Amino acid sequence: MTNNIKQIAQKAKEASLILAGLNSQTKDQALQDIADALLANKAYIFSQNEEDLKKAKKLLENKEISQAIYDRLKLSDSKFNDMIAGILDVKKLQDPINTTLCATKLAEGLELYKVSCPIGVIGVIFEARPDVIVQITSLAIKSANAVILKGGIESILTNNAFIKIIHETLSKLPNFPQNAINFVETREDVNQMLALDKYIDLIIPRGSNKLVQFIQNNTKIPVLGHADGICHIFIDENANIDLGIKITLDSKIQYPAACNAVETLLVAEKISKTFLPKFSKIMTENGVKLKGDSKTKDILPNIEKAEEKDWQTEYGDKILSIKIVKNVEEAIFHINKFGSGHTDCIVSENKENVEKFMSLVDSAGVYHNVSTRFADGFRYGLGAEVGISTNKTHARGPVGLEGLTIYKYKLFGHGQIVAEYTGKNAKRFLHERII
Amino acid sequence: MTNNIKQIAQKAKEASLILAGLNSQTKDQALQDIADALLANKAYIFSQNEEDLKKAKKLLENKEISQAIYDRLKLSDSKFNDMIAGILDVKKLQDPINTTLCATKLAEGLELYKVSCPIGVIGVIFEARPDVIVQITSLAIKSANAVILKGGIESILTNNAFIKIIHETLSKLPNFPQNAINFVETREDVNQMLALDKYIDLIIPRGSNKLVQFIQNNTKIPVLGHADGICHIFIDENANIDLGIKITLDSKIQYPAACNAVETLLVAEKISKTFLPKFSKIMTENGVKLKGDSKTKDILPNIEKAEEKDWQTEYGDKILSIKIVKNVEEAIFHINKFGSGHTDCIVSENKENVEKFMSLVDSAGVYHNVSTRFADGFRYGLGAEVGISTNKTHARGPVGLEGLTIYKYKLFGHGQIVAEYTGKNAKRFLHERII
Repeated sequence: MTNNIKQIAQKAKEASLILAGLNSQTKDQALQDIADALLANKAYIFSQNEEDLKKAKKLLENKEISQAIYDRLKLSDSKFNDMIAGILDVKKLQDPINTTLCATKLAEGLELYKVSCPIGVIGVIFEARPDVIVQITSLAIKSANAVILKGGIESILTNNAFIKIIHETLSKLPNFPQNAINFVETREDVNQMLALDKYIDLIIPRGSNKLVQFIQNNTKIPVLGHADGICHIFIDENANIDLGIKITLDSKIQYPAACNAVETLLVAEKISKTFLPKFSKIMTENGVKLKGDSKTKDILPNIEKAEEKDWQTEYGDKILSIKIVKNVEEAIFHINKFGSGHTDCIVSENKENVEKFMSLVDSAGVYHNVSTRFADGFRYGLGAEVGISTNKTHARGPVGLEGLTIYKYKLFGHGQIVAEYTGKNAKRFLHERII
Repeated sequence: MTNNIKQIAQKAKEASLILAGLNSQTKDQALQDIADALLANKAYIFSQNEEDLKKAKKLLENKEISQAIYDRLKLSDSKFNDMIAGILDVKKLQDPINTTLCATKLAEGLELYKVSCPIGVIGVIFEARPDVIVQITSLAIKSANAVILKGGIESILTNNAFIKIIHETLSKLPNFPQNAINFVETREDVNQMLALDKYIDLIIPRGSNKLVQFIQNNTKIPVLGHADGICHIFIDENANIDLGIKITLDSKIQYPAACNAVETLLVAEKISKTFLPKFSKIMTENGVKLKGDSKTKDILPNIEKAEEKDWQTEYGDKILSIKIVKNVEEAIFHINKFGSGHTDCIVSENKENVEKFMSLVDSAGVYHNVSTRFADGFRYGLGAEVGISTNKTHARGPVGLEGLTIYKYKLFGHGQIVAEYTGKNAKRFLHERII
C-alpha cells in the first residue's frame, strides 16, 4: 500500500511536468469535455449517489453522522447544475499560467521575465461533499496542477462515479497526461501522502478544525487552509446601531456553521447601553443565544456568562459571545489576541477608527460596515475557490486560481557571464523595467 | 531559558502589529539613522571584530573552522562601506507595504481592496557573516516585519556591537516599537524558536545544506530557502560552442562555493565529439576537475567516472560532472529528476528547443545562453535579497522585499448582508475591476 501511494504521487509529479507545458486551448477543451460527460452520465451519477445515501441514512439513524453531513452528501438537480456551471465558469476565467508578472532589462541583450507557472502536485483532502471533486478538478486543470484527492468515505460511490467519468474523458484527449487527476480512498492513504514531500508540493485540507490541525501537525509539506474561523464584529462608539444589528444578524444566522460566521461581538463601552438592549431583543427573536462578559451582563443580566474560553471558541451554531471594550484599540488588541486571522469587521461612522482597525487588525479580511459572510471566493469575484487561507505566506483569504500558481524567472541572454559584472572594470546593470 | 525565547517571540509579535501601521517616512528615518550610527561607531565595531578574529584565528589554526569561514568573519573597509550603501539602497526602494495589488467593485457601495502587508515575525538563522544582521535588519524595517536573528557564534562580539547600535538607534525613535529587531545567541535558542509557530510566521535559514535541512525537518513554521543548489547547463546540439564554454566556465569558477554555481553539464550527443575535447582543455587549464558518464569517458578517457550520486552532489568546488544526453527532452528529464529546482541553463541556437527547456524545466530560474551565476537578488534588480528560495509556494528564486510581504483583503461596505445576495431574488454582484 505504501508503495501504491508513493507510485501515485510519483506519477502525479511526472504528469505535473507535462501539464505545465499545455496551452490554454487544451486545458479549456478538457474542462468542456468533462462538463459534457458529466451531463451525459447524470443518471449514473445520481444512481451511485442514491446508493451512498442509503448507507448514510443508516448512519444518520444510528447518529453516527449528523443531518448536516447527510444533507451535504445528497446531490440535487440544483447542486448538479451549479457544479456544471462551475466547470464552465472556471473555463471562462483567464488562464493563470504563463502570464508575465514583471520583466526587467538587466543589461543590453539580457532580459529577465517573471512568469506565472503551476505549483506542481497538490493534495486536497476533504470531507463529505462529493461535488468538491469536480470543483477541485476544474481548478487544477485550469491552473495546470496535478492533484491527489481524498474525499469522504460516506460518498465513496458518488466520488468513484465522478472520478471514472473524469478519467475516461481525459484519456480521450491525446495531449493530456493521464495521471493529472488522482484519487485515494482511505485515511491511511492520507497519512502516507503527508510524508511524500518529495512529490507533493502543497496540501489543502477542507473540513473540520480537527482534520486541518491533524494535517498541519503531521507534514512537512506546506498546508494551505484554516483551522479555526473565529470572526469578530466590533460595534464602535459612533456606529449606526441599526446597521450594526443588521450586519451582526446576517453574520451570525445566514449560515452559522460557516467559517466566516461571527463568533464574538465586541461593543464599545460608550454605545453599549444604547446598543445592547435593542440588539439582544432582535437576536433572541432570531433564536440566537447570547453569552456576555460581566460588563455585558450588567446590561443584559439574563444571558449566560462568557468565560475566556468563549473568546477562543468557534461555536458554528446560533451562539454569540459578547464583550464590552473601552475603544477601538482594545477591540484591535482583543481580535489580534483571540482571533484566528480570518475575517473581522468594524461597524463605525468614524473615519479615523475605521482606518486604524483596517490597518492594524492582522486578519485575511478586514471589513467596514459589511457582513463577515462575504468572505468567499465567489463573492470576491475570484470565480471559484479552493478554500480560505489564514496562512501568513503564499495566499491569504479566499484562494482562487492565482493561489494555485507560483512563478519562475526566465533569463534570456547572449553569453553574458558574471565575471564581466564584478571587480574593478565591472559592467553596470541597467535594471530597466520592461513590464 | 524556554521562557526567555518565548517572551522574545511574544514581544516580537506585539511589535510586528505596531510595525504594520508605520508610515514610509518613519521606516526610512530608522534606516537613515541606523546607517549614520553605524558610521559613527565604525571604530567600536572594528575593535569588536578584531576580538572575534583573534579567537577565530585559533580555531583556524586548530582546523576547527575553514579559511573561507574566517574570511567571511572579517570586516573590511569595503565590506563595511557596502553594508552602509546597502542600507541606503533599501531605504531608496519603494515601500512594499500598503500597495493596492488589485481592487474590485463587488456591488454599489461595496469595494474590495487587496493590499500588501507585512508577514509578521520572521526568524532568520545564519552562519558566520556578521554583516547579514545589518542587511536583514534593513529589509525587515522596510517591509515592516519584526525579526528574530540568530547569527554565528564565531562573530558574537561583532554581532552584539551591531545589535547594540541598532537597538540604541531605534530606541530614540518615538513611534518605533522596541522589540522589532531581536537577537538570540545559541543553537538551543534556535531549537526553541522552531516550536514557536504561534508567534513566528516564517523562518529563513541561510547557511549550509545541513542547517537548512535540519530546520526544514524540525518545524511547522514555513521555511523559505534552499538546501541544495544543483544547477545544470545543457549544451544543445546546435549550441554555439565558444558561448557554451564561456558560460560554463563562469558558472563553475567565478565562485564555486555559491549555490548558483553549475554542478552538472549535460551535452547533446550530436555535439559531444566536437564540444567536449575543446571544453575539457579549457576547463583543465582553469583547474576544474571533470567527471563523466561512460559516454563522456569514451570521448575524454582520462577523466574520472561519474556515478549516479554525482548527479545529486553539490560539489561547491572546482569539480564538474558531465553526462551525454540524447536531446533536449532527456536533458529536461534529467534536470527535473536530479536538480534542486534552483537555476538551470540551456545553451542553444534552436528556438524550439529553447522554448521547450524554458517551459518544462521546473526550476526557480531557467536561463538561455547566460551564466547560472546571475541568480541573485542584486543582479535581478530586487535591490537586496533575504535569500534564494527553491520552494514551490510563496516566493521562488532570489527573494527581495516583495517576498517579505503578504496581503490582506479590505472590504468597505454600507451595511450589505449576504442574505440579500442569496436565494430567489438575490441581488447580483458586479465584480468590476477598479485597479
